[in-house]
Amino acid sequence: MPHPERRDRLRPLLTAAGLDALLVTDLLDVRYLTGFTGSNAAVVIGADPTADVLCTDGRYRLQAGEQAPDLELLVERPSAPAAGASVPAGATLGYPSDTITVDGLAAVRDAVPGRRLRRAPGLVGRLRAVKDDGEVAAIRAACALADTALRELLDAGGLRPGRTEREVALDLEDRMRRLGARGPAFETILAAGAHSAVPHHRPTDAELRRGDLVKIDFGAALDGYHSDTTRTFCLGPAADWQRDLHALVDAAAAAGRAALADGATVTDVDSAARDLISDAGYGEEEFPHGLGHGIGLAVHEPPWLSRTGTGAVAAGQVVTVEPGVYLGGRGGVRIEDVLHVEPGRPAVALTTLPRELVEV
Amino acid sequence: MPHPERRDRLRPLLTAAGLDALLVTDLLDVRYLTGFTGSNAAVVIGADPTADVLCTDGRYRLQAGEQAPDLELLVERPSAPAAGASVPAGATLGYPSDTITVDGLAAVRDAVPGRRLRRAPGLVGRLRAVKDDGEVAAIRAACALADTALRELLDAGGLRPGRTEREVALDLEDRMRRLGARGPAFETILAAGAHSAVPHHRPTDAELRRGDLVKIDFGAALDGYHSDTTRTFCLGPAADWQRDLHALVDAAAAAGRAALADGATVTDVDSAARDLISDAGYGEEEFPHGLGHGIGLAVHEPPWLSRTGTGAVAAGQVVTVEPGVYLGGRGGVRIEDVLHVEPGRPAVALTTLPRELVEV
Repeated sequence: MPHPERRDRLRPLLTAAGLDALLVTDLLDVRYLTGFTGSNAAVVIGADPTADVLCTDGRYRLQAGEQAPDLELLVERPSAPAAGASVPAGATLGYPSDTITVDGLAAVRDAVPGRRLRRAPGLVGRLRAVKDDGEVAAIRAACALADTALRELLDAGGLRPGRTEREVALDLEDRMRRLGARGPAFETILAAGAHSAVPHHRPTDAELRRGDLVKIDFGAALDGYHSDTTRTFCLGPAADWQRDLHALVDAAAAAGRAALADGATVTDVDSAARDLISDAGYGEEEFPHGLGHGIGLAVHEPPWLSRTGTGAVAAGQVVTVEPGVYLGGRGGVRIEDVLHVEPGRPAVALTTLPRELVEV
Repeated sequence: MPHPERRDRLRPLLTAAGLDALLVTDLLDVRYLTGFTGSNAAVVIGADPTADVLCTDGRYRLQAGEQAPDLELLVERPSAPAAGASVPAGATLGYPSDTITVDGLAAVRDAVPGRRLRRAPGLVGRLRAVKDDGEVAAIRAACALADTALRELLDAGGLRPGRTEREVALDLEDRMRRLGARGPAFETILAAGAHSAVPHHRPTDAELRRGDLVKIDFGAALDGYHSDTTRTFCLGPAADWQRDLHALVDAAAAAGRAALADGATVTDVDSAARDLISDAGYGEEEFPHGLGHGIGLAVHEPPWLSRTGTGAVAAGQVVTVEPGVYLGGRGGVRIEDVLHVEPGRPAVALTTLPRELVEV
């Protein structure tokens, strides 16, 4: 969807919130609305399009002109107060209370005497949560690229006893880059043996050993969008407890994916998977995170599938489903896919790797 | 410096600010004070050490216990309100207004009835700006690694006409990783020809051509610390204007480095370099950024060397000096080094590459 169209879709939300204009300071929100990718920017979007303005500093003058040629450009620093001050006296200006800092808001307040400031969190996020066709294609491409990289690594015998976690993680990241990724979407989690029981383990120089569970949580960054896949392998024949653990998480993941549908509450989707894990005797200690999250310009973004979340899943959202069970000191299994929620049918996986337990 | 010692050095700042305790939510501040590297955490540091507490969620229970075994651990989400609530009624709790969001503060406020909340920006940042010996060694190691990678790339003939900006950037990043970096410190800026006039250009598929200026701004991430070097090369013999431009920026960089000393105001250091550039007839349009920035756990952190900055440089700080002159449509030159400010003597460069114009 062209950026001007995105801005036009934001305007009714402003009007509904009683705002004449919205200040946007989160850089991914700025990118979403304008295409501008610099590291310093603020945008004002008006209920009336003639109020739209992009503010950045002199380092980005050329780039802003190229990436957002249709927007009025202010070159000033700091950018948020300068952008805010473009709104006329008497206007009501919404600010993103969920992303702007307390001091950032104070600086804006000083710069906009005579305007009414009003808290307005999450308005751009509400748009961003529902992906357009181009965004779904970008996430699909990132998923395909990352999954291909892991397939290549497996085919090349890259997952084997004697290599370190760090070596395998670098190998996988190298392959993603060679396939065209800008880089990994996040620091690859490669966790072998007892480390696989640490949900967000950072790769170490520990060597992989026969009999290890190896949990690989990885993604590619491509054209600003991201993928996020987790698979858990066994090095050599799996012990019964490893096979059982994998089967349990696989079943929970399948239940979560089946529950992920337009209109389902985020707590119901979470429960669909979590109940299976609880029924097997595991609780908060062994599954200490939510079931999944939206993914797009950010690796983690709304909606949040969790026991304490609010709201429902909607068609067009792209969401991970990633249950895990972690047995401290022994090992853990997580299986994660990225899915696109479509109207009137089950969500469709954008990730492409098989899910059965692979004994490498 | 051990993490408990860092926390002890923070306490007098709390007392001076009239605080019984400080809430810390910035993840690099958390890492600095505790060693904990998870993606969700908040810390409370007390004027009295028995009040110290680290809060994170269940994904990081094991990791927090390993990385910060000496701290009381709270496992709860969201972490900032939970950490704040550990402070007793009647206490005065400072909050980091420069990093906490407006909604984040509101959630803390709801969780701590009966405590006085007080704005307290930048207290941990003040400590972080002055590096201890271990930190200087880490930054020095990151600089040496990154510079070695560029040297290797040059020796291997990796900078040559026909390769694309993207290929050369990936090559450099690969080399940093193979030398042991966790990754690039930031997205490598590799800008050839007219692109070199864009201060923060992102590498494209444009091919390098004979006669191009090639600006390379790159760094390595290593053990949590970062480097940041810029050099500008000429592909083949330099034209007179290229040679003159490089000589001007080289002189400005030398003047900036010479002015960088314990007690010098940040504006004076900036002027030392900027005045040479202004005297040559270039202004805000051609040198549209500050002279430099602190570097450490973050790639960009205080102090800020700029025309509008406040305060003075202090011994122990590690700071970049990076003047540039950018001629739109033609090309630009930037030369950047990382320096350690030492008491009673000129700042010492931690970067290691020669600065004269290299015609590749």
